[in-house]
Amino acid sequence: MTMSQPVDSAVSAVRSYVEQHRAAFLDDLVEWLRIPSVSAQPDHAPDVRRSADWLAAKLRETGFPTAEVWETPGAPAVFADWPCDDPEAPTVLVYGHHDVQPAAREDGWDSEPFEPVVRDNRLYARGAADDKGQVFFHTLGVRAHLATTGRTAPAVHLKLLIEGEEESGSPHFRALVEERANRLAADAVIVSDTGMWAEDTPTVCTGMRGLAECEIRLHGPDQDLHSGSFGGAVPNPATAVARLVAALHDEHARVTVPGFYDGVVELTDQERALFAELPFDEEQWLRTAKSYATHGEAGHTTLERVWARPTAEVNGIGGGYQGPGSKTIIPSSAMVKLSFRLVAGQDPDDIEKIVRAWVEEQVPAGIRCEITFLAATRPCLTPLDHPALQSVVRAMGRAFDRPVRFTREGGSGPAADLQEVLGAPVLFLGISIPSDGWHAPNEKVELDLLLRGVETTAYLWGDLAEHWRHAP
Amino acid sequence: MTMSQPVDSAVSAVRSYVEQHRAAFLDDLVEWLRIPSVSAQPDHAPDVRRSADWLAAKLRETGFPTAEVWETPGAPAVFADWPCDDPEAPTVLVYGHHDVQPAAREDGWDSEPFEPVVRDNRLYARGAADDKGQVFFHTLGVRAHLATTGRTAPAVHLKLLIEGEEESGSPHFRALVEERANRLAADAVIVSDTGMWAEDTPTVCTGMRGLAECEIRLHGPDQDLHSGSFGGAVPNPATAVARLVAALHDEHARVTVPGFYDGVVELTDQERALFAELPFDEEQWLRTAKSYATHGEAGHTTLERVWARPTAEVNGIGGGYQGPGSKTIIPSSAMVKLSFRLVAGQDPDDIEKIVRAWVEEQVPAGIRCEITFLAATRPCLTPLDHPALQSVVRAMGRAFDRPVRFTREGGSGPAADLQEVLGAPVLFLGISIPSDGWHAPNEKVELDLLLRGVETTAYLWGDLAEHWRHAP
Repeated sequence: MTMSQPVDSAVSAVRSYVEQHRAAFLDDLVEWLRIPSVSAQPDHAPDVRRSADWLAAKLRETGFPTAEVWETPGAPAVFADWPCDDPEAPTVLVYGHHDVQPAAREDGWDSEPFEPVVRDNRLYARGAADDKGQVFFHTLGVRAHLATTGRTAPAVHLKLLIEGEEESGSPHFRALVEERANRLAADAVIVSDTGMWAEDTPTVCTGMRGLAECEIRLHGPDQDLHSGSFGGAVPNPATAVARLVAALHDEHARVTVPGFYDGVVELTDQERALFAELPFDEEQWLRTAKSYATHGEAGHTTLERVWARPTAEVNGIGGGYQGPGSKTIIPSSAMVKLSFRLVAGQDPDDIEKIVRAWVEEQVPAGIRCEITFLAATRPCLTPLDHPALQSVVRAMGRAFDRPVRFTREGGSGPAADLQEVLGAPVLFLGISIPSDGWHAPNEKVELDLLLRGVETTAYLWGDLAEHWRHAP
Repeated sequence: MTMSQPVDSAVSAVRSYVEQHRAAFLDDLVEWLRIPSVSAQPDHAPDVRRSADWLAAKLRETGFPTAEVWETPGAPAVFADWPCDDPEAPTVLVYGHHDVQPAAREDGWDSEPFEPVVRDNRLYARGAADDKGQVFFHTLGVRAHLATTGRTAPAVHLKLLIEGEEESGSPHFRALVEERANRLAADAVIVSDTGMWAEDTPTVCTGMRGLAECEIRLHGPDQDLHSGSFGGAVPNPATAVARLVAALHDEHARVTVPGFYDGVVELTDQERALFAELPFDEEQWLRTAKSYATHGEAGHTTLERVWARPTAEVNGIGGGYQGPGSKTIIPSSAMVKLSFRLVAGQDPDDIEKIVRAWVEEQVPAGIRCEITFLAATRPCLTPLDHPALQSVVRAMGRAFDRPVRFTREGGSGPAADLQEVLGAPVLFLGISIPSDGWHAPNEKVELDLLLRGVETTAYLWGDLAEHWRHAP
């Protein structure tokens, strides 16, 4: 389905500017992609630093009056700041990352991962889509915005925070944001580290699930016991762990922990209708998941289940003898690792409390339990009628000449820290598509989409400044 | 509680003979115990062979007309045969083993494990109780029987089969018994590789539980999935394994697999009363088990649960990520290892059939299951009124000057193969006590008990020949 919209003169101007600068833009991106900024591999630490330095210099060249490399106990981040002269204009913070996943030719790449090549209008390189390409479209985007509006500074107060440890789990990100909260202050956060539904279906993601994780270890006898001598007469902690997991969901696949759904922001009829509009092929989705059936909370579609419903999943379970053959023991202990995906309205601290209470109640006599919760991530959700979200939708719609639809993200990420520490809503502007191969061999970005990203931001800052003004 | 019985002249004669030969008997046993016949350690293979040769020579010296070393693909066994001249006398096969568990001084032994020492009337050495001591009391026992009755051959047709791989799981035992079934043919099997309740409580074990073991692997997605992207929408095999295990028992801790209890030989009121007579201290038993509660099938005591009731236990469970920290995946597969202890009336082949059917039925849509059963062991049970059992009880009662009580064995062992292949009931004549430290450092045998074992067999063959005759 193609929907043409009349091309206005602003659009013509932006497209002409982008076309004119396209070659130089791609040359620069290729230069950056050559730097193997793999944060997970210590011997690439100098490359991650080189990548930060390169980006800061490029952002100054782009026109940002301030572009700094920010140190952390790990890899450095880059911060850039371009104030605007309109005191009523909003401040926007763009988030992305300049580190990349590990990659080696022998993993199955058709070309060297750090020697970018263009084939069939696709740019192949580690980081092309995740996330250097998506960070980089902001540079040409803001230039196009200025050139086509005759401005010398963006229509919004524009800030960028490009971290260097996202692919290593962002271990120092929260502390960095807390420490630099004053300089990062913004009215909205725009995350350019996600994707859209499909090449012909531009989408805006309106929320991410949060995450609470725990390990529950149940201790039975102080030693493994012979199942012949003691079997059938003392509680078995592996059985107890299994019964705990089995009790976690009811027959409708709803989580049974009392209070788990308290406060959950339910999908509105409008949001459910918008999800249903997406061209979702469940059979295809199952093939992607290499799974053989859908299964989940009764009364919800698959997309609702992965995007907008809280879950409890077993990530790992273990106890007793797991080697070849047999060992007839009652194991001394057994454990399960659970993760709870959370949606707006759920607080990880509350979830920890109610899960602990529930587990203690389930554990049978003679079994002792030990529960450890890891650091949690909060959910984030931006209402459909938020003015910044409306601006992103309009800008994307103009760039793509298509109606923009809405998705959510089932995973969890550092964006939630920005929302929480800065108190600003989080929006997602990503132009990657599922076939881009994040974390896989032959990662690529579609050049046409990359330039639509440039174009989107060329429209976005003006639209935002026009429709979302601070009270004077 | 001590119960004296009048000491008859036969008893006096046996005791006097044993006293007279005690020193030489112990010297011989010590010589045998010096041979480190550790079947699990390949570098001790020559020692296991030396042990077999030593025993065969000693049995010939004892008077057995036939004493052979029987080869297996692994360690050799020893077979001895002493026919009797009375065609109406029963044939008895004694089972034991001449291999021992590994042992090293640094494991916590107070003396060298293969340099036997006597302290406080206890003989310390690896194999002293398990099982060389218990095999060896049969040598002096049969001599005492002959000397005090004036016979030149035992009152029963006496056979011994002393295997060399019991401590390695008897991998070639079944095949050996099948291959040599003609020569092993017997009316009863007497296993001397067990223990009794306590030093002051002689007991005869009347049955062993059988064992069926399986591994059930449930396959979900063909790869681990990101629990953010797919969590809550596809079936999780770790959850499915847990639900399977949880469904295995009902709220009365009874196994729910349909047909599981079909044919089970229930305890008679007499057997329950005999179990209840044993001086069982449940608190002490829990301390031994290092467990903190009893738990088991409703309506049964702890002793009934471990000796006479079939069970289903989880020996191992595993799936997904079990390392430190977290990995937010839906695992591709998960598995559980189950063992079912079986009692008389249950057939492992039937159990396999009904467990397979039950598992298939439990598995949810989108999950594929794979079930592997290992080689099973049948249960064995000898009725309390069996004439051979009555003879063992009488002989033991005379030797110990105490009433003999009844136990069962919750574990499973190669004796079941003898019962099944030879079609003979299995009886247990063991004189070891729980403190003897089988498989542990400082294994020992109580010399007084060892000599009571000698004495028991000195009475046993005559009693058997008198009370359990073939039709002429």
